[in-house]
Amino acid sequence: MKINVVKSVLAASEAQADDNRRRFDEAGVVAINIMSAPGSGKTALLEKTIPALAPRAGCAVMVGDLQTTRDAERLGDLGASVVQINTGRGCHLSPAQVAAGLEHLDLDRIDFLFIENVGNMVCPASFDLGEHLRAVLLSVPEGDDKVAKYPPLFQSADAILLTKIDLIGALDYNTAAVREDLAHINTRAPLVELSVLSGAGMDEWLAWLGDQRRT
Amino acid sequence: MKINVVKSVLAASEAQADDNRRRFDEAGVVAINIMSAPGSGKTALLEKTIPALAPRAGCAVMVGDLQTTRDAERLGDLGASVVQINTGRGCHLSPAQVAAGLEHLDLDRIDFLFIENVGNMVCPASFDLGEHLRAVLLSVPEGDDKVAKYPPLFQSADAILLTKIDLIGALDYNTAAVREDLAHINTRAPLVELSVLSGAGMDEWLAWLGDQRRT
Repeated sequence: MKINVVKSVLAASEAQADDNRRRFDEAGVVAINIMSAPGSGKTALLEKTIPALAPRAGCAVMVGDLQTTRDAERLGDLGASVVQINTGRGCHLSPAQVAAGLEHLDLDRIDFLFIENVGNMVCPASFDLGEHLRAVLLSVPEGDDKVAKYPPLFQSADAILLTKIDLIGALDYNTAAVREDLAHINTRAPLVELSVLSGAGMDEWLAWLGDQRRT
Repeated sequence: MKINVVKSVLAASEAQADDNRRRFDEAGVVAINIMSAPGSGKTALLEKTIPALAPRAGCAVMVGDLQTTRDAERLGDLGASVVQINTGRGCHLSPAQVAAGLEHLDLDRIDFLFIENVGNMVCPASFDLGEHLRAVLLSVPEGDDKVAKYPPLFQSADAILLTKIDLIGALDYNTAAVREDLAHINTRAPLVELSVLSGAGMDEWLAWLGDQRRT
Protein backbone atom coordinates (compact mmCIF):
# COMPACT_ATOMS: atom_id res chain seq x y z
CA MET A 1 0.00 0.00 0.00
CA LYS A 2 2.75 2.40 1.00
CA ILE A 3 4.74 1.49 -2.12
CA ASN A 4 1.76 2.14 -4.35
CA VAL A 5 1.40 5.63 -2.96
CA VAL A 6 5.06 6.43 -3.60
CA LYS A 7 4.90 4.99 -7.10
CA SER A 8 1.86 6.99 -8.02
CA VAL A 9 3.48 10.24 -6.88
CA LEU A 10 6.62 9.49 -8.88
CA ALA A 11 4.59 8.41 -11.89
CA ALA A 12 2.62 11.65 -11.76
CA SER A 13 5.87 13.62 -11.63
CA GLU A 14 7.29 11.75 -14.60
CA ALA A 15 4.08 12.15 -16.57
CA GLN A 16 4.12 15.90 -15.90
CA ALA A 17 7.76 16.10 -17.01
CA ASP A 18 6.91 14.25 -20.23
CA ASP A 19 3.98 16.57 -20.80
CA ASN A 20 6.22 19.63 -20.32
CA ARG A 21 8.74 18.18 -22.80
CA ARG A 22 6.01 17.53 -25.35
CA ARG A 23 4.92 21.17 -25.08
CA PHE A 24 8.50 22.34 -25.57
CA ASP A 25 8.94 20.06 -28.57
CA GLU A 26 5.72 21.21 -30.21
CA ALA A 27 6.82 24.83 -29.89
CA GLY A 28 10.42 24.19 -30.98
CA VAL A 29 11.75 25.33 -27.60
CA VAL A 30 15.03 24.02 -26.19
CA ALA A 31 14.59 23.72 -22.42
CA ILE A 32 17.76 23.77 -20.34
CA ASN A 33 17.75 22.94 -16.63
CA ILE A 34 20.51 24.96 -14.96
CA MET A 35 21.70 23.54 -11.68
CA SER A 36 24.39 24.19 -9.10
CA ALA A 37 25.06 24.90 -5.45
CA PRO A 38 23.86 28.28 -4.14
CA GLY A 39 26.01 31.14 -5.37
CA SER A 40 27.83 29.38 -8.20
CA GLY A 41 26.76 32.06 -10.61
CA LYS A 42 23.64 30.74 -12.36
CA THR A 43 21.94 34.12 -12.47
CA ALA A 44 25.18 35.94 -13.34
CA LEU A 45 25.65 33.53 -16.26
CA LEU A 46 22.14 34.26 -17.52
CA GLU A 47 22.71 38.01 -17.14
CA LYS A 48 25.48 37.64 -19.75
CA THR A 49 23.91 34.89 -21.85
CA ILE A 50 20.52 36.44 -22.57
CA PRO A 51 21.75 39.76 -24.00
CA ALA A 52 24.14 37.78 -26.21
CA LEU A 53 21.36 35.51 -27.52
CA ALA A 54 18.39 37.87 -27.52
CA PRO A 55 19.11 39.67 -30.82
CA ARG A 56 18.79 36.39 -32.70
CA ALA A 57 16.76 34.12 -30.40
CA GLY A 58 13.71 34.33 -28.17
CA CYS A 59 14.71 33.68 -24.57
CA ALA A 60 12.77 33.00 -21.38
CA VAL A 61 13.84 32.20 -17.85
CA MET A 62 12.03 30.37 -15.10
CA VAL A 63 13.88 30.88 -11.84
CA GLY A 64 13.39 28.89 -8.64
CA ASP A 65 14.21 30.15 -5.15
CA LEU A 66 12.83 29.40 -1.71
CA GLN A 67 12.04 33.09 -1.20
CA THR A 68 12.38 36.53 -2.81
CA THR A 69 12.06 37.73 -6.40
CA ARG A 70 15.66 39.01 -6.46
CA ASP A 71 16.85 36.77 -9.29
CA ALA A 72 13.86 37.63 -11.44
CA GLU A 73 14.49 41.32 -10.80
CA ARG A 74 18.11 40.92 -11.91
CA LEU A 75 16.96 39.22 -15.10
CA GLY A 76 13.91 41.37 -15.79
CA ASP A 77 15.38 43.98 -18.13
CA LEU A 78 17.48 41.84 -20.43
CA GLY A 79 15.00 41.12 -23.19
CA ALA A 80 13.70 37.79 -21.91
CA SER A 81 10.41 36.80 -20.32
CA VAL A 82 11.05 35.91 -16.67
CA VAL A 83 8.95 33.85 -14.27
CA GLN A 84 9.96 33.57 -10.59
CA ILE A 85 8.88 30.43 -8.75
CA ASN A 86 9.13 30.51 -4.94
CA THR A 87 9.35 27.01 -3.51
CA GLY A 88 8.97 27.90 0.19
CA ARG A 89 10.95 25.12 1.83
CA GLY A 90 11.18 23.10 -1.41
CA CYS A 91 14.71 22.01 -2.26
CA HIS A 92 14.22 21.71 -6.03
CA LEU A 93 11.82 22.72 -8.78
CA SER A 94 9.13 20.20 -9.68
CA PRO A 95 7.64 19.49 -13.11
CA ALA A 96 4.28 20.76 -11.81
CA GLN A 97 5.87 24.10 -10.83
CA VAL A 98 7.39 24.35 -14.30
CA ALA A 99 4.01 23.61 -15.86
CA ALA A 100 2.45 26.35 -13.73
CA GLY A 101 5.22 28.73 -14.82
CA LEU A 102 4.50 27.95 -18.48
CA GLU A 103 1.10 29.61 -18.09
CA HIS A 104 3.00 32.91 -18.03
CA LEU A 105 5.06 32.30 -21.18
CA ASP A 106 4.26 32.35 -24.90
CA LEU A 107 6.26 29.33 -26.05
CA ASP A 108 5.79 30.18 -29.72
CA ARG A 109 8.01 33.23 -29.23
CA ILE A 110 10.74 31.32 -27.36
CA ASP A 111 13.77 29.45 -28.70
CA PHE A 112 15.58 28.91 -25.39
CA LEU A 113 13.93 28.35 -22.02
CA PHE A 114 16.42 28.47 -19.17
CA ILE A 115 15.08 26.84 -16.00
CA GLU A 116 17.26 28.08 -13.15
CA ASN A 117 16.75 25.52 -10.42
CA VAL A 118 17.00 26.06 -6.65
CA GLY A 119 20.64 26.34 -5.57
CA ASN A 120 21.31 22.81 -4.39
CA MET A 121 23.95 20.31 -5.46
CA VAL A 122 21.90 17.26 -4.45
CA CYS A 123 18.11 17.16 -4.85
CA PRO A 124 17.53 18.81 -8.25
CA ALA A 125 19.54 16.03 -9.91
CA SER A 126 16.79 13.52 -9.10
CA PHE A 127 13.91 15.39 -10.75
CA ASP A 128 13.22 15.50 -14.49
CA LEU A 129 11.39 18.75 -15.20
CA GLY A 130 10.86 17.93 -18.85
CA GLU A 131 14.07 19.67 -19.91
CA HIS A 132 16.08 18.56 -22.94
CA LEU A 133 19.46 19.37 -21.48
CA ARG A 134 21.15 19.95 -18.17
CA ALA A 135 23.83 22.57 -17.62
CA VAL A 136 25.60 22.20 -14.28
CA LEU A 137 27.74 24.94 -12.75
CA LEU A 138 30.64 24.40 -10.38
CA SER A 139 32.37 27.51 -9.08
CA VAL A 140 36.06 27.72 -8.28
CA PRO A 141 35.58 28.93 -4.66
CA GLU A 142 33.55 25.79 -3.86
CA GLY A 143 36.73 23.75 -4.11
CA ASP A 144 38.11 21.20 -6.55
CA ASP A 145 36.65 18.15 -4.73
CA LYS A 146 32.95 18.63 -5.43
CA VAL A 147 32.60 16.39 -8.53
CA ALA A 148 33.67 13.34 -6.53
CA LYS A 149 31.63 14.28 -3.47
CA TYR A 150 28.35 15.06 -5.31
CA PRO A 151 28.47 12.72 -8.33
CA PRO A 152 24.77 12.36 -9.27
CA LEU A 153 24.44 15.98 -10.40
CA PHE A 154 27.58 15.85 -12.53
CA GLN A 155 26.71 12.43 -13.97
CA SER A 156 23.48 13.79 -15.40
CA ALA A 157 24.99 16.95 -16.94
CA ASP A 158 25.08 17.67 -20.67
CA ALA A 159 27.40 20.64 -20.15
CA ILE A 160 29.50 21.51 -17.10
CA LEU A 161 30.56 25.10 -16.51
CA LEU A 162 33.49 25.80 -14.21
CA THR A 163 32.64 29.36 -13.17
CA LYS A 164 34.56 32.17 -11.46
CA ILE A 165 37.84 31.02 -13.02
CA ASP A 166 39.13 34.57 -12.44
CA LEU A 167 39.57 33.41 -8.80
CA ILE A 168 41.83 30.44 -9.66
CA GLY A 169 44.93 32.55 -9.03
CA ALA A 170 43.75 33.68 -5.59
CA LEU A 171 42.79 30.18 -4.46
CA ASP A 172 44.69 26.92 -4.37
CA TYR A 173 42.55 25.39 -7.11
CA ASN A 174 43.45 22.30 -9.10
CA THR A 175 41.50 22.21 -12.37
CA ALA A 176 43.30 19.01 -13.41
CA ALA A 177 41.85 17.27 -10.34
CA VAL A 178 38.35 18.28 -11.46
CA ARG A 179 38.97 16.90 -14.94
CA GLU A 180 40.32 13.68 -13.43
CA ASP A 181 37.21 13.22 -11.26
CA LEU A 182 34.98 13.95 -14.27
CA ALA A 183 36.81 11.31 -16.31
CA HIS A 184 35.37 8.71 -13.91
CA ILE A 185 31.85 10.15 -13.91
CA ASN A 186 30.94 11.93 -17.13
CA THR A 187 33.05 11.96 -20.30
CA ARG A 188 30.16 13.10 -22.47
CA ALA A 189 29.63 16.67 -21.25
CA PRO A 190 32.10 19.37 -22.23
CA LEU A 191 33.75 21.25 -19.35
CA VAL A 192 33.65 24.96 -20.13
CA GLU A 193 36.01 27.09 -18.04
CA LEU A 194 34.24 30.39 -17.66
CA SER A 195 34.29 33.82 -16.02
CA VAL A 196 31.46 36.26 -16.49
CA LEU A 197 33.79 39.02 -15.26
CA SER A 198 36.54 38.50 -17.84
CA GLY A 199 34.26 36.95 -20.46
CA ALA A 200 36.52 33.91 -20.74
CA GLY A 201 34.64 30.85 -21.95
CA MET A 202 31.51 32.75 -22.97
CA ASP A 203 32.12 32.10 -26.69
CA GLU A 204 32.40 28.37 -26.03
CA TRP A 205 29.20 28.37 -23.94
CA LEU A 206 27.28 30.40 -26.54
CA ALA A 207 28.52 28.11 -29.33
CA TRP A 208 27.32 25.07 -27.35
CA LEU A 209 23.92 26.72 -26.90
CA GLY A 210 23.77 27.55 -30.61
CA ASP A 211 24.33 23.89 -31.45
CA GLN A 212 21.26 22.95 -29.40
CA ARG A 213 18.84 25.32 -31.13
CA ARG A 214 15.76 23.66 -32.63
CA THR A 215 14.27 26.35 -34.86
CA MET B 1 -3.81 5.95 6.18
CA LYS B 2 -1.27 7.74 4.03
CA ILE B 3 -0.97 10.48 6.66
CA ASN B 4 -0.39 7.93 9.38
CA VAL B 5 2.52 6.49 7.45
CA VAL B 6 4.14 9.88 7.04
CA LYS B 7 3.55 10.73 10.67
CA SER B 8 5.12 7.53 11.90
CA VAL B 9 8.25 8.12 9.83
CA LEU B 10 8.58 11.67 11.16
CA ALA B 11 7.85 10.53 14.70
CA ALA B 12 10.54 7.87 14.42
CA SER B 13 12.99 10.48 13.21
CA GLU B 14 12.15 12.81 16.08
CA ALA B 15 12.36 10.00 18.62
CA GLN B 16 15.79 9.05 17.28
CA ALA B 17 16.93 12.68 17.50
CA ASP B 18 15.72 12.88 21.11
CA ASP B 19 17.52 9.63 21.88
CA ASN B 20 20.75 10.98 20.38
CA ARG B 21 20.41 14.17 22.45
CA ARG B 22 19.85 12.17 25.64
CA ARG B 23 23.03 10.22 24.97
CA PHE B 24 24.95 13.46 24.40
CA ASP B 25 23.53 14.96 27.60
CA GLU B 26 24.37 11.91 29.70
CA ALA B 27 27.98 12.03 28.48
CA GLY B 28 28.30 15.83 28.84
CA VAL B 29 28.89 16.22 25.11
CA VAL B 30 27.97 19.40 23.24
CA ALA B 31 26.75 18.36 19.80
CA ILE B 32 26.94 21.01 17.09
CA ASN B 33 25.31 20.54 13.69
CA ILE B 34 27.43 22.39 11.10
CA MET B 35 25.55 23.27 7.94
CA SER B 36 26.14 25.23 4.74
CA ALA B 37 26.14 25.05 0.98
CA PRO B 38 28.84 22.86 -0.61
CA GLY B 39 32.27 24.46 -0.44
CA SER B 40 31.55 27.12 2.19
CA GLY B 41 34.47 25.89 4.27
CA LYS B 42 32.97 23.55 6.88
CA THR B 43 35.89 21.14 6.76
CA ALA B 44 38.45 23.96 6.55
CA LEU B 45 36.90 25.50 9.67
CA LEU B 46 37.19 22.20 11.54
CA GLU B 47 40.80 21.80 10.36
CA LYS B 48 41.57 25.00 12.31
CA THR B 49 39.09 24.53 15.16
CA ILE B 50 40.07 21.05 16.33
CA PRO B 51 43.80 21.71 16.84
CA ALA B 52 42.87 24.85 18.78
CA LEU B 53 40.45 22.97 21.06
CA ALA B 54 42.14 19.57 21.30
CA PRO B 55 44.73 20.42 23.96
CA ARG B 56 41.96 21.22 26.43
CA ALA B 57 38.88 19.41 25.09
CA GLY B 58 38.00 16.04 23.59
CA CYS B 59 36.75 16.50 20.04
CA ALA B 60 35.03 14.24 17.55
CA VAL B 61 33.68 14.83 14.07
CA MET B 62 30.96 13.05 12.18
CA VAL B 63 31.08 14.09 8.54
CA GLY B 64 28.39 13.50 5.93
CA ASP B 65 28.98 13.37 2.19
CA LEU B 66 27.21 11.65 -0.67
CA GLN B 67 30.47 9.91 -1.66
CA THR B 68 34.18 9.71 -0.78
CA THR B 69 36.07 9.77 2.50
CA ARG B 70 38.00 12.91 1.52
CA ASP B 71 36.74 15.07 4.36
CA ALA B 72 37.46 12.38 6.95
CA GLU B 73 40.97 12.02 5.53
CA ARG B 74 41.52 15.77 5.85
CA LEU B 75 40.38 15.65 9.48
CA GLY B 76 42.01 12.37 10.43
CA ASP B 77 45.30 13.59 11.89
CA LEU B 78 44.16 16.50 13.99
CA GLY B 79 43.61 14.79 17.32
CA ALA B 80 39.89 14.09 16.97
CA SER B 81 37.94 10.90 16.38
CA VAL B 82 36.41 11.06 12.89
CA VAL B 83 33.50 9.11 11.43
CA GLN B 84 32.61 9.48 7.75
CA ILE B 85 28.99 8.87 6.76
CA ASN B 86 28.26 8.41 3.06
CA THR B 87 24.65 9.19 2.25
CA GLY B 88 24.62 7.96 -1.36
CA ARG B 89 21.97 10.23 -2.88
CA GLY B 90 20.82 11.49 0.52
CA CYS B 91 20.63 15.28 0.73
CA HIS B 92 21.10 15.55 4.52
CA LEU B 93 22.21 13.51 7.52
CA SER B 94 19.47 11.71 9.43
CA PRO B 95 19.28 11.07 13.18
CA ALA B 96 19.55 7.32 12.46
CA GLN B 97 22.82 7.87 10.58
CA VAL B 98 24.14 9.90 13.51
CA ALA B 99 23.12 7.12 15.89
CA ALA B 100 24.96 4.60 13.70
CA GLY B 101 28.00 6.85 13.72
CA LEU B 102 27.94 7.03 17.52
CA GLU B 103 28.77 3.32 17.61
CA HIS B 104 32.28 4.34 16.54
CA LEU B 105 32.79 7.01 19.20
CA ASP B 106 33.52 6.91 22.94
CA LEU B 107 31.28 9.73 24.13
CA ASP B 108 32.84 9.75 27.59
CA ARG B 109 36.07 11.08 26.07
CA ILE B 110 34.36 13.79 24.03
CA ASP B 111 33.45 17.35 24.96
CA PHE B 112 32.56 18.62 21.49
CA LEU B 113 30.95 16.57 18.72
CA PHE B 114 30.91 18.41 15.42
CA ILE B 115 28.39 16.96 12.98
CA GLU B 116 29.37 18.23 9.53
CA ASN B 117 26.21 17.86 7.49
CA VAL B 118 25.93 17.28 3.73
CA GLY B 119 26.67 20.49 1.82
CA ASN B 120 23.17 21.78 1.17
CA MET B 121 21.53 25.08 2.04
CA VAL B 122 17.99 23.66 2.10
CA CYS B 123 17.24 20.15 3.34
CA PRO B 124 19.47 19.79 6.43
CA ALA B 125 17.57 22.67 8.07
CA SER B 126 14.46 20.49 8.35
CA PHE B 127 16.05 17.60 10.26
CA ASP B 128 16.84 17.60 13.95
CA LEU B 129 19.76 15.20 14.48
CA GLY B 130 19.70 15.55 18.25
CA GLU B 131 22.21 18.40 18.23
CA HIS B 132 22.22 21.11 20.87
CA LEU B 133 23.32 23.88 18.57
CA ARG B 134 23.47 24.77 14.91
CA ALA B 135 26.37 26.60 13.33
CA VAL B 136 25.62 27.79 9.79
CA LEU B 137 28.31 28.91 7.38
CA LEU B 138 27.84 31.38 4.54
CA SER B 139 30.85 32.07 2.35
CA VAL B 140 31.58 35.40 0.71
CA PRO B 141 31.85 34.01 -2.86
CA GLU B 142 28.28 32.67 -2.61
CA GLY B 143 27.02 36.24 -2.71
CA ASP B 144 25.37 38.58 -0.23
CA ASP B 145 21.79 37.60 -1.13
CA LYS B 146 21.67 34.08 0.32
CA VAL B 147 20.16 34.82 3.75
CA ALA B 148 17.00 36.21 2.14
CA LYS B 149 16.83 33.48 -0.49
CA TYR B 150 17.34 30.51 1.87
CA PRO B 151 15.82 31.71 5.15
CA PRO B 152 14.95 28.42 6.93
CA LEU B 153 18.60 27.46 7.46
CA PHE B 154 19.55 30.87 8.80
CA GLN B 155 16.42 31.12 10.97
CA SER B 156 17.43 27.97 12.85
CA ALA B 157 21.09 28.94 13.41
CA ASP B 158 22.63 29.51 16.84
CA ALA B 159 25.80 30.92 15.29
CA ILE B 160 26.34 32.17 11.74
CA LEU B 161 29.85 32.25 10.31
CA LEU B 162 30.58 34.47 7.32
CA THR B 163 33.59 32.62 5.88
CA LYS B 164 36.28 33.49 3.32
CA ILE B 165 36.15 37.17 4.27
CA ASP B 166 39.66 37.44 2.80
CA LEU B 167 37.84 37.51 -0.58
CA ILE B 168 35.64 40.52 0.27
CA GLY B 169 38.11 42.84 -1.42
CA ALA B 170 38.19 40.84 -4.64
CA LEU B 171 34.39 40.56 -4.88
CA ASP B 172 31.62 43.11 -4.82
CA TYR B 173 30.38 41.93 -1.43
CA ASN B 174 28.03 43.87 0.83
CA THR B 175 28.31 42.63 4.42
CA ALA B 176 25.84 45.29 5.58
CA ALA B 177 23.20 43.76 3.27
CA VAL B 178 23.73 40.40 4.94
CA ARG B 179 23.32 41.91 8.39
CA GLU B 180 20.17 43.71 7.22
CA ASP B 181 18.64 40.47 5.91
CA LEU B 182 19.57 38.70 9.15
CA ALA B 183 17.87 41.44 11.18
CA HIS B 184 14.56 40.25 9.67
CA ILE B 185 15.24 36.56 10.19
CA ASN B 186 17.49 35.83 13.16
CA THR B 187 18.63 38.40 15.71
CA ARG B 188 19.65 35.75 18.26
CA ALA B 189 22.68 34.18 16.55
CA PRO B 190 25.97 36.09 16.46
CA LEU B 191 27.44 36.70 13.00
CA VAL B 192 31.14 35.87 13.11
CA GLU B 193 33.17 37.25 10.19
CA LEU B 194 35.89 34.70 9.63
CA SER B 195 38.80 33.66 7.44
CA VAL B 196 40.68 30.45 8.10
CA LEU B 197 43.49 31.81 5.89
CA SER B 198 44.11 35.01 7.85
CA GLY B 199 42.78 33.67 11.15
CA ALA B 200 40.39 36.60 11.45
CA GLY B 201 37.37 35.74 13.58
CA MET B 202 38.79 32.48 14.92
CA ASP B 203 39.11 33.87 18.46
CA GLU B 204 35.46 34.93 18.43
CA TRP B 205 34.36 31.49 17.15
CA LEU B 206 36.50 29.64 19.70
CA ALA B 207 35.18 31.85 22.50
CA TRP B 208 31.61 31.08 21.43
CA LEU B 209 32.41 27.37 21.47
CA GLY B 210 34.01 27.69 24.89
CA ASP B 211 30.82 29.25 26.23
CA GLN B 212 28.85 26.18 25.11
CA ARG B 213 31.02 23.60 26.89
CA ARG B 214 29.18 21.34 29.29
CA THR B 215 31.97 19.65 31.30
